Amino acid sequence: MTTQAPNTDATPATPEAAAPPTRFAMVLFNGFQALDVFGPIDTLNLLSRILSRRSPSSPGLSLALLAATLDPVTTAAPDAQQTTEQKVLPTHTFATAPAALDVVLIPGGQGTRTRATIQPAVDFIRRRFPDVRLVLTICTGVVVVARAGLLNGERATTNKSKFGWVVEAASEGSPDAVWVERARWVEGDKIWSASGVSAGMDAMLEMVAKLYGRDVAEEIATTQEYARHTDSTDDPFWEVHHANK
Amino acid sequence: MTTQAPNTDATPATPEAAAPPTRFAMVLFNGFQALDVFGPIDTLNLLSRILSRRSPSSPGLSLALLAATLDPVTTAAPDAQQTTEQKVLPTHTFATAPAALDVVLIPGGQGTRTRATIQPAVDFIRRRFPDVRLVLTICTGVVVVARAGLLNGERATTNKSKFGWVVEAASEGSPDAVWVERARWVEGDKIWSASGVSAGMDAMLEMVAKLYGRDVAEEIATTQEYARHTDSTDDPFWEVHHANK
Repeated sequence: MTTQAPNTDATPATPEAAAPPTRFAMVLFNGFQALDVFGPIDTLNLLSRILSRRSPSSPGLSLALLAATLDPVTTAAPDAQQTTEQKVLPTHTFATAPAALDVVLIPGGQGTRTRATIQPAVDFIRRRFPDVRLVLTICTGVVVVARAGLLNGERATTNKSKFGWVVEAASEGSPDAVWVERARWVEGDKIWSASGVSAGMDAMLEMVAKLYGRDVAEEIATTQEYARHTDSTDDPFWEVHHANK
Repeated sequence: MTTQAPNTDATPATPEAAAPPTRFAMVLFNGFQALDVFGPIDTLNLLSRILSRRSPSSPGLSLALLAATLDPVTTAAPDAQQTTEQKVLPTHTFATAPAALDVVLIPGGQGTRTRATIQPAVDFIRRRFPDVRLVLTICTGVVVVARAGLLNGERATTNKSKFGWVVEAASEGSPDAVWVERARWVEGDKIWSASGVSAGMDAMLEMVAKLYGRDVAEEIATTQEYARHTDSTDDPFWEVHHANK
């Protein structure tokens, strides 16, 4: 395990040459963080409307919600001291996921603390990684790709207040990950990783900007009235957590 | 209908004298905006953990998810050109909602454009309003309380890009609402209204700050890595929409 701070590299400027991806999936497990999932999904819902408006006859954007079974998935973690919960219906299991997926999103949350809870997601991403174009992890969701052995030699970041735990947990499958302590998000060739919770919205919007154009991302953020971070190195919560140490 | 801009009043500084509310409900209808619902809910989930940690033996915070029936509720609007959807399970119907509710949250979204879609929510809030302590509307969700006749003489705001439509739709039940064009959110005595989508997160965090203390709101926002707006008059999207006119 190597750490690297601050995030000094330039953002890759290469535009995507291929057609923009339209087949998205969000991984779910019990104890997912609500905003990790529904922040980026809100962007995809709005992107879906924009694409449908532009090309009413095209199949448009698809978003599969994947889980170990088709049972409702709850935001309450297995061991959480949390008296609220919300349940979301998956559209597919990991076994019946659509054969073609362009982008897979992986949220964090208390559920990542329990090995058995995320193991089906770890197995899924390990199996499907060669065939997908991009993966975006949000918050502690990076542990899923790390345990799948996909982060060796790769730069990644995560939630600032859970950094130590994530690095430790990730060392199991990806001991040679390169951790970027100060980053709102990190763009790898194939794996993007966002910092904590709402950073997932910034990474998702930036991915939309890169794949569909800055005007599309701006239209979505304006509709959301979301003052997005457009600089991946602008990480105010790195400051907060270092000040609190 | 009166409009008022900018939002010039001072934030009410009166601390809540009573015990903080713990019985929350979120209204759902088909075509709700994902982030309107799960932004504020993410805050309530984290608040729930904080309360459980502080007082493990207390019943803690409760959050009911209310809809017309117990069928899953979708983010896809009845008439939306949207090819993605997510389905959430309600915990109660409007008819079986918990008898005691302190705070009711009402999201916006494409569903508010269809009268029949929100009518059960309108009837619910009209019936229960006298007994609740606070209502928070998010985005176009303010139309629900307006149609229930609850906004006459009250100051309120909404999504900046939908302002004209909201004022028109709201005139039916609340022709004497006082619309504040430039506000991230507006705090009334009993009805708080947030501007568009992510403004709901700011209003929710401010409500938590007022009711549970600024330290609690800061802890939650830091966990979410959310750079929240703490000034209700700081409304960057009012600028954007006026610049685009």
